[in-house]
Amino acid sequence: MGGDLIAQAVRLVAQLAVILVAAKIGAELCERYLKQPAVLGELIAGVLISPFLFGSYIPFFEGGALFPQPVQAVGIPIPPPLFAVAQLAAVILLFLAGLETDLKQFLKYALAATVVAMGGVIVPFFLGTYLTVAFGVAEHFYDPNALFVGSILTATSVGITARVLGDIGKLDTPEGVTILGAAVVDDVFGILVLSIVIAISVAETHGGPINFKEIGFLGLKAIGFWVGLMVVGILGAPVFEKFLHWFKTRGSTVPLALAVCFFASCLAEWAGLAMIIGAYAIGLSLSSRPIAKELIESVEPVFHFLVPVFFVVTGMMVNLGAIGSMPMFAVAITIAAIIGKWFGCTTTALGMGFNMTGANRVGIGMIPRGEVALIVAQVGIAKGIIDQGIYGVAILMAFVTTLFAPIGLGPVFRRGGIGIRPKAKEA
Amino acid sequence: MGGDLIAQAVRLVAQLAVILVAAKIGAELCERYLKQPAVLGELIAGVLISPFLFGSYIPFFEGGALFPQPVQAVGIPIPPPLFAVAQLAAVILLFLAGLETDLKQFLKYALAATVVAMGGVIVPFFLGTYLTVAFGVAEHFYDPNALFVGSILTATSVGITARVLGDIGKLDTPEGVTILGAAVVDDVFGILVLSIVIAISVAETHGGPINFKEIGFLGLKAIGFWVGLMVVGILGAPVFEKFLHWFKTRGSTVPLALAVCFFASCLAEWAGLAMIIGAYAIGLSLSSRPIAKELIESVEPVFHFLVPVFFVVTGMMVNLGAIGSMPMFAVAITIAAIIGKWFGCTTTALGMGFNMTGANRVGIGMIPRGEVALIVAQVGIAKGIIDQGIYGVAILMAFVTTLFAPIGLGPVFRRGGIGIRPKAKEA
Repeated sequence: MGGDLIAQAVRLVAQLAVILVAAKIGAELCERYLKQPAVLGELIAGVLISPFLFGSYIPFFEGGALFPQPVQAVGIPIPPPLFAVAQLAAVILLFLAGLETDLKQFLKYALAATVVAMGGVIVPFFLGTYLTVAFGVAEHFYDPNALFVGSILTATSVGITARVLGDIGKLDTPEGVTILGAAVVDDVFGILVLSIVIAISVAETHGGPINFKEIGFLGLKAIGFWVGLMVVGILGAPVFEKFLHWFKTRGSTVPLALAVCFFASCLAEWAGLAMIIGAYAIGLSLSSRPIAKELIESVEPVFHFLVPVFFVVTGMMVNLGAIGSMPMFAVAITIAAIIGKWFGCTTTALGMGFNMTGANRVGIGMIPRGEVALIVAQVGIAKGIIDQGIYGVAILMAFVTTLFAPIGLGPVFRRGGIGIRPKAKEA
Repeated sequence: MGGDLIAQAVRLVAQLAVILVAAKIGAELCERYLKQPAVLGELIAGVLISPFLFGSYIPFFEGGALFPQPVQAVGIPIPPPLFAVAQLAAVILLFLAGLETDLKQFLKYALAATVVAMGGVIVPFFLGTYLTVAFGVAEHFYDPNALFVGSILTATSVGITARVLGDIGKLDTPEGVTILGAAVVDDVFGILVLSIVIAISVAETHGGPINFKEIGFLGLKAIGFWVGLMVVGILGAPVFEKFLHWFKTRGSTVPLALAVCFFASCLAEWAGLAMIIGAYAIGLSLSSRPIAKELIESVEPVFHFLVPVFFVVTGMMVNLGAIGSMPMFAVAITIAAIIGKWFGCTTTALGMGFNMTGANRVGIGMIPRGEVALIVAQVGIAKGIIDQGIYGVAILMAFVTTLFAPIGLGPVFRRGGIGIRPKAKEA
C-alpha cells in the first residue's frame, strides 16, 4: 500500500517532468518559428507524447511505459493523479481569467453573452443531429446516436480561448467578456441538453417516461447557482480581503486565494456545473477589488507551472488512430462543428450590437471543443449510447476545433479595429 | 471512467481547499499566539483534519467523507492524487532548500555530515533493537521485530528541518549544511539498513541465505548516484542556464526549472534513494550559479501553494487512536528516538569540530522522523514483519519527534552564537 502510493507519486513527478519540457519546447517552437500562440505548441506536444502516439515508447524506470495506453480502447489515457493535476490547472487558469476580466464590462455584455451562447448551442445541435441521420449513422432524429452527436457539438472549451485572450491581453474587450460569458452560459445549456438527450435515450431503449420536471430543476439550480455565487462573491469580496489581511505569516496570500477559488469550483460542481465555471465566477467577483492585482501577480508562477500541464494533457487525450472508421462522417461533423458554432454565435453577436469584425471574433473564440467534448463523448460511451466509431468522430472534431482558436484568434484581434457598433457602445 | 476521473479530480480540489485553509489558520495561530514556527501549526492542523480525528466528519458533497478512513486500519489514509501532490510538494521544498544552500559551505562540511549521519543511524538502531527485546516485544536481537523497530528509528525527515531552517534563514550555516548533508547520507544508510533487515527477516522466516553482494551493490549504486548527480549537476549547470535563456516564451523559467528538479528526483528514486534527495542535489548544484536567485524567487509562490499541503498531509497520517496498545513501550521508543538521535549526532558533531552550541543544533535538527518513519513502518506491515501494535508505536514516535524540530530549533539557533570551534572554522 505505502509502496504503491509512492509508485504513483513517482510516476506523476516523472510525467510532469516530461510534460513540462515537451510543453515549453512546443510553445517556444510555435511562437518563434510558426508565429503562433504558445498554447498551440503545448497541445501538439500533448498529441505527440500521448500514449496513442509516441508516449507509449517513453519507458518508465519502474516498468512499462511512462504514459501507458488505457485498458479500454476508448478510455481517457490519463492516470487519476495526472488528470486531477490537469483539472487543478484548468481551475487556476479560469480563476486568473476571471481576475483579469473587468466585472462591469462583463455585466454590460451579460445579455449579449447569453444570446450568443444560445445561438452556439442551437445551430450546432441541429446540424449535428441532422448530419448523423443524413449519413445513415442514425435512423431518425430521435435516435439516441443522433441526439448525442448533436449534444457533443454544443460543448465549448473555454480554456483555450481564455488562455489565448489572456496571452494577447484581450480578456477585457467586449468580445473577450462576451466569449467567456457565453462559455459560462453554454455550460449551463450543455448540461441541460445532455440531461435531456440522456433522458430521451433511456426512454427510447427502456421505455420509461422522461422526467422534464427534474431536468427543469437541474437548469434552475445551475442558473441559480451562478447568480448566487456572483452575488455572494461580490458582496463577500471585502470580507475576504479583510480575512486575507489578518494573516501575517509569510506566503499566506497564494494558498488562501487558491483555497477560495477551489471552494467555489467545488460548489459549481455540486450545483451540476463544471469546476472551472465556479473558478471563473469567483475570480470575476474579485476582479474589481484592490487586491486583484496582487492576487494575479502572486498566483502567476503557479499558473506558469500548472497550466501547460492542462493543455498537454488535453492533447494527450487525442487518439489519432481511432479517427479512421468513419472518415467522411468525421470530416462532415468537424466542418459542421466549426461552421455551426461560428454561424450560431456570429449571427447572434451581430444581433446584439457587434459589427462584423467583433461578431467574427466572438464566433471564432467559441469554436474550440477541447476536452469538454471528449468528456461528453466518454459519458455517452459509459452509458452505452454511442459506440467507438462515433467516439473517433468526436476526437477529430475536438482536435481540429481546438487548434482553430489559437491560430484564428490572434489575426482577427490584430486587424479590424473596434468590434462593436457605435450605438451599442453607448448603451 | 471519465466520470470517475472527474470525481477524483473534484475530490482533490475540495481536499486542497480544506487543507490550505486549515494549514494557514494553523500556521497563523502558531506564529502569532504560540510564537512557534508556521510548520508546527500546519502539522497540528493535519492531525486535526486527519480521517482518524475530525476529517471523517467533514462531508463530501459527492457522498461519504472528504477524507475517508482507509479500508485497512493500518493503511495510509491519503488517496493517490493527494498523496502524489504532497510528494510533489516535498520535492519542491527540497529543491528550494538546495538552491538556498551555499555549495562551497556544503562541500566543506560534507565529511562532518557523513560522520554525523553514521552516529545518527548507529545509536538509534541499537537502542531501538535493545528496547524491543528488553520490553519482551522481540525474543532476541535477530528477531525481525527488533531489527525493524531499530531501522524505523534510523529514519530522518529532512523536510521539517529544511522548512524551519529556511524560514529562519539558517540553511547556509555550518549547522544547516551539516544537518541537510547528514539527512542525505542518512537516506543512503537508511536504505542499506532496511535492506539488510528485510533480508535477515526473510532469511529468519523462510530460511533463505542473505545476499550481501546485492545489498552491497545497492549501497554503491546509491552513493555513486549521489556523487554522480552532483558532478553532472555542477558541470551541467552552465548548459542548463544557456538552455533556459534560449526560451523567450513568457513564463518558461518556472516550468523548466521544476522539470529539471523532477527529472533529478526520478533519477534518485531510480537509484534507490528518495525523490527529495535528487531534488536537493540538483538544487544544490545550481545554488552557486547566477540564475539561482531568479529561480528561488520565481518558484517561491509554487512553494507557498504546495508545501503546506505536504505538512498537513504528514500530520494527517498520524492515527492517534492506534497508539494505545503498547503505551509503555511506545513512550520508551519515543524517548529512545529522541535521545538516540540527539546523542549519536551531537557527539559525532563535537568530534567533527562543532562546539556544544553547534553540536546541539545539529542533534536537534536530526531528530524529526516525520513521514519517512511512517513509510518504513508501512513497508514492514506490507511485508508481514511487524504488526499493528508496533505500527502504533511508530506513529507516536514519528509524531513526537516531528514536533520537536520546529519547537526546538528556533531557540537553539537564536542563542549561543557561533556553533563551530575556532580551529575547525579555519580548516
